[in-house]
Amino acid sequence: MSMLKSSEIIGLIAGFLTTSGYIPQIYVVIKSKTASGLSGLFLSIMSVGISLWLVYGALIKSLSIMVANGFSLICLLVLGFYKIKDITNNH
Amino acid sequence: MSMLKSSEIIGLIAGFLTTSGYIPQIYVVIKSKTASGLSGLFLSIMSVGISLWLVYGALIKSLSIMVANGFSLICLLVLGFYKIKDITNNH
Repeated sequence: MSMLKSSEIIGLIAGFLTTSGYIPQIYVVIKSKTASGLSGLFLSIMSVGISLWLVYGALIKSLSIMVANGFSLICLLVLGFYKIKDITNNH
Repeated sequence: MSMLKSSEIIGLIAGFLTTSGYIPQIYVVIKSKTASGLSGLFLSIMSVGISLWLVYGALIKSLSIMVANGFSLICLLVLGFYKIKDITNNH
């Protein structure tokens, strides 16, 4: 069995938190039925950034970077869907 | 002059975007004078996660990880400040 360095354990916990953190935000948006408190630009920039992290993970062949950012991207797309629905309803 | 690998350039752009993405969100919160659309749990989990990325960056001595996550943490603390003000005002 290989031992993980303590720095890598901290990195994995960090990645788990910054990925799963989106779940309560999705819950708030679904419960309040609006994403008006979220910046569309925030969601857009984050989605492009996370997509590039996904490409980066593929290029350096890091499964954990791909999985973590793939999950974050799905969360951001869900939030973006509600944001677009908001904007459409207000026009 | 050393050449950066294309994967590292993509990683740096990704890092720049997922860091600066918080700025329009701060703008929306300040303009609307409320962070009610943001999940407090989202902000808390993200802050802890980003803090751990900061520790990770220090442990592996990566200045770019430290700078990027240090900046994100400041943004999250600003958003958290408005969230706490919201909660305090509603009690």
